[in-house]
Amino acid sequence: MDDQPDITRRRGRKERKAARTAPDAGVVSPVSGGHYCPLSDEGVQQIHEAALTILEEIGMGGVPEELRLAAVAAGLPVGDDGRLRFPRSWIAEMLEWVPKQITLHGRRQELNVPLGAGITHYATGGMAVRMVDISTGEWRPSTLQDLYDCARLVENLPHIQVFNRTCVPSEITDLRQFDLSIAYACAAGTAKPLGIGFNLPEHVSECAEMYDMILGGEGAFAAQPFTTCNTCAVVPPLMYGEDNTVVAMEAARRGFPVKMTNAAQAGATAPAALAGTMAQTVAESLAGIAMVQLARKGAPVIWANWPFVSDLRTGAFSGGGGEIAVLNAASAQMARWYELPNCTSGGMTDSKTTDAQYGYEKGMTNLAAGLAGADVIYEATGMIGSIVGCALEAYVIDDEMIAAARQVIRGIDVTEESLSIDVIRDVCLGGPGHYLGHAQTLELMSSAYHYPALASREPPDAWVEAGKPDLRERAKERVHEILGAAEPLTDPSLEAEICAKFPVTGFHGG
Amino acid sequence: MDDQPDITRRRGRKERKAARTAPDAGVVSPVSGGHYCPLSDEGVQQIHEAALTILEEIGMGGVPEELRLAAVAAGLPVGDDGRLRFPRSWIAEMLEWVPKQITLHGRRQELNVPLGAGITHYATGGMAVRMVDISTGEWRPSTLQDLYDCARLVENLPHIQVFNRTCVPSEITDLRQFDLSIAYACAAGTAKPLGIGFNLPEHVSECAEMYDMILGGEGAFAAQPFTTCNTCAVVPPLMYGEDNTVVAMEAARRGFPVKMTNAAQAGATAPAALAGTMAQTVAESLAGIAMVQLARKGAPVIWANWPFVSDLRTGAFSGGGGEIAVLNAASAQMARWYELPNCTSGGMTDSKTTDAQYGYEKGMTNLAAGLAGADVIYEATGMIGSIVGCALEAYVIDDEMIAAARQVIRGIDVTEESLSIDVIRDVCLGGPGHYLGHAQTLELMSSAYHYPALASREPPDAWVEAGKPDLRERAKERVHEILGAAEPLTDPSLEAEICAKFPVTGFHGG
Repeated sequence: MDDQPDITRRRGRKERKAARTAPDAGVVSPVSGGHYCPLSDEGVQQIHEAALTILEEIGMGGVPEELRLAAVAAGLPVGDDGRLRFPRSWIAEMLEWVPKQITLHGRRQELNVPLGAGITHYATGGMAVRMVDISTGEWRPSTLQDLYDCARLVENLPHIQVFNRTCVPSEITDLRQFDLSIAYACAAGTAKPLGIGFNLPEHVSECAEMYDMILGGEGAFAAQPFTTCNTCAVVPPLMYGEDNTVVAMEAARRGFPVKMTNAAQAGATAPAALAGTMAQTVAESLAGIAMVQLARKGAPVIWANWPFVSDLRTGAFSGGGGEIAVLNAASAQMARWYELPNCTSGGMTDSKTTDAQYGYEKGMTNLAAGLAGADVIYEATGMIGSIVGCALEAYVIDDEMIAAARQVIRGIDVTEESLSIDVIRDVCLGGPGHYLGHAQTLELMSSAYHYPALASREPPDAWVEAGKPDLRERAKERVHEILGAAEPLTDPSLEAEICAKFPVTGFHGG
Repeated sequence: MDDQPDITRRRGRKERKAARTAPDAGVVSPVSGGHYCPLSDEGVQQIHEAALTILEEIGMGGVPEELRLAAVAAGLPVGDDGRLRFPRSWIAEMLEWVPKQITLHGRRQELNVPLGAGITHYATGGMAVRMVDISTGEWRPSTLQDLYDCARLVENLPHIQVFNRTCVPSEITDLRQFDLSIAYACAAGTAKPLGIGFNLPEHVSECAEMYDMILGGEGAFAAQPFTTCNTCAVVPPLMYGEDNTVVAMEAARRGFPVKMTNAAQAGATAPAALAGTMAQTVAESLAGIAMVQLARKGAPVIWANWPFVSDLRTGAFSGGGGEIAVLNAASAQMARWYELPNCTSGGMTDSKTTDAQYGYEKGMTNLAAGLAGADVIYEATGMIGSIVGCALEAYVIDDEMIAAARQVIRGIDVTEESLSIDVIRDVCLGGPGHYLGHAQTLELMSSAYHYPALASREPPDAWVEAGKPDLRERAKERVHEILGAAEPLTDPSLEAEICAKFPVTGFHGG
């Protein structure tokens, strides 16, 4: 039966089996941020007005011909200086066209991630070019196998709900092979919502075709677009990047939700003043969203203003400081104010190893973005060394870190019942004087608390007796357990078909 | 001249010299939290009302005779069941007596820490009984020398602004020697505001006498009380602890600001429902504050509701999870709502080493409490292994972690100028297209950004060439540098005098 070429049937059986055998990946209960507002209401308004002024008076340079034509058609002539300026009123109107709620589809419905619904999710992210080898610790060039392993791992980590391409196959130089191999490796490894990018617009439609095959029929992907198209179509300060812009416009026409990533660096490609970085990057994000709407009015597009920071001692990107944490939280707050489906970044550490620096830089940036209520926090997991690298054990560590962050975001449910006056009365007035065996305790223990599987909670002496394990050792063991047990998501015959049709190599069926 | 017995002159010279030679310890610019509100306004009100109901209907048990007499005198008779119940109206009136702003005095004015002023500070804390030996890594019993080393270290760590006793001298069994040795070791090591505790009320006045000598004359400490008296006078659920209560009442009469610590554990000594833990612990904190006001109306007292969490798998205290982070943030929010000088806890990790778990647990709990706007966050630094131990290198790591957390709390200053529209115009319209050399960048680089001294920001290859240093190695080196250069704060002759008068041994002059 497994060689049966009927794609629809094959998919149905396979996916049903996956749904039964999958661990609790993706079924964690939702949490909603927004209790942390780094900006005052007035500050939000001031940044918004400054962004509109920037778009109106300074505008965007580097306008590709395709965008220029669309802009002219919309009555937005490019100036003599080659810059595209947006009147305030046009931006306001354009924002009405943007879908306020969209779904990042998984391949199983329970893995869907709603954006614009006030629920906070964490994702992988990055385009790491190096992998920290789990066996040797070497910082070596990353491969397609690494990407596939990341995907298979994340498929089994419940608190990571979106799999954005993590690393690139540095062994592949052909751009078509590069883009389509990434597209397949991600989908082969996980059924969670994906995020990938394209070097050339023609690869967009090829990918859609491949994903139609995975879903079981032509047009299936358009109905269930289970990947975003990541584009860095804005090149700060205030320029469009030609290659990414034409990819974004094509993706918008093909029904991909476009993740309009803008990673300006405060001090280098954005002002050193944090408010100035916000003003410029909000302008840039609006300009990026406008570009997608010029390609296709009403196209799903995701606010992805990820304000980064330069270490001004060297000019290099730094992902782990306090400044980037508050900037990304402010980005989430602005997006919520615009009521746009959104994401921001967090979890970017400058450490090169899973040490205390790694922990606190990731912990603080991930928590700040989550408390601020971003729909998705990208880069949150697995990345290391200022997002130059990624590491398998890092995903496992970060999954557990995010489980804790989610408990903070979940907050405190205050109701007559949860205030527990009667429970307190029971315990204190003639009761046992403690809550350890109380029915409420037993009930909430399993439903309201997160208990880490890897993080150490044993007493010091027990930990010494156990050989003083560092969290990274426990995480590495868990990686091997998960990858050792993971089964391929796609049928061998479908995989063979895909590998024959597209330049995808190195897979079981390929 | 150094043998001159005039304490006033000696102190003046010594302290002036210290002020000149001290590094920038304690002079970091203030940051204000409060942008994170884990509870809704309605939730705050519900918890407040529940706490009042608990105080009125269930009340506090274990009332010591001294408190019973004071309560009766205030028209609050203890019930037949031995419980002290507080009418709602009396609590409201009592809260009017509590000073809303108080100062944690340092021995130099620039080290003063204002409470109730909306400024967030980080502290050490704990009563660790074990020290992670910096040379061997062994978890050994802590000593007076360890405490003194912690104090000398923190004196030189600018982002740790309050030195609460960190570990206990486990080699000392005599209670008087124990209390007074701690009192001296802390003051000998740092001029920052202190926090200590007492086993017996008679040690309170002896300590005040010792601190008068340090400040240079009788009554000087009452005018500049440079330590809080820490008491755990509340024993959850809803009991007073006799020993700590009589110490707290004596300290209040002697002019010590009383830190009314309540460390109920959700699931063990407080309800497993987080709202219930808040209701009970708010009631307990109000009952503790009431006790101090019954001892001396208008006495300075510090809200120190530190809601802890039990790992319900074992019943053991767990300091590093998401639940404790949100509980402590909620405690800060409640205290701010009551407009009480306050502190809460953070930075408690269950890790036994300075690994990634250590980093993320500390980073998230410290950030949550800081964003919620606690006046002081205790336990924030140095503690390890569910506050059973402390480690010198941990203070150094945590100082830098807190520097980053403070940048998040500092937030984004939105003004016409900081929005930087003119700077953006300069750069983008005919300018260089980047901000690296702009005057604003150069100015803000030194004033608005924090650059870590220890945390790795070099590229991966440089880090590999440097021998792949873990943050803990760099931190240990820094400990040795600081302690190697630290000079005693008190004159040898004064120290000899103190060691002769009080049972304090093991110091230079002792």
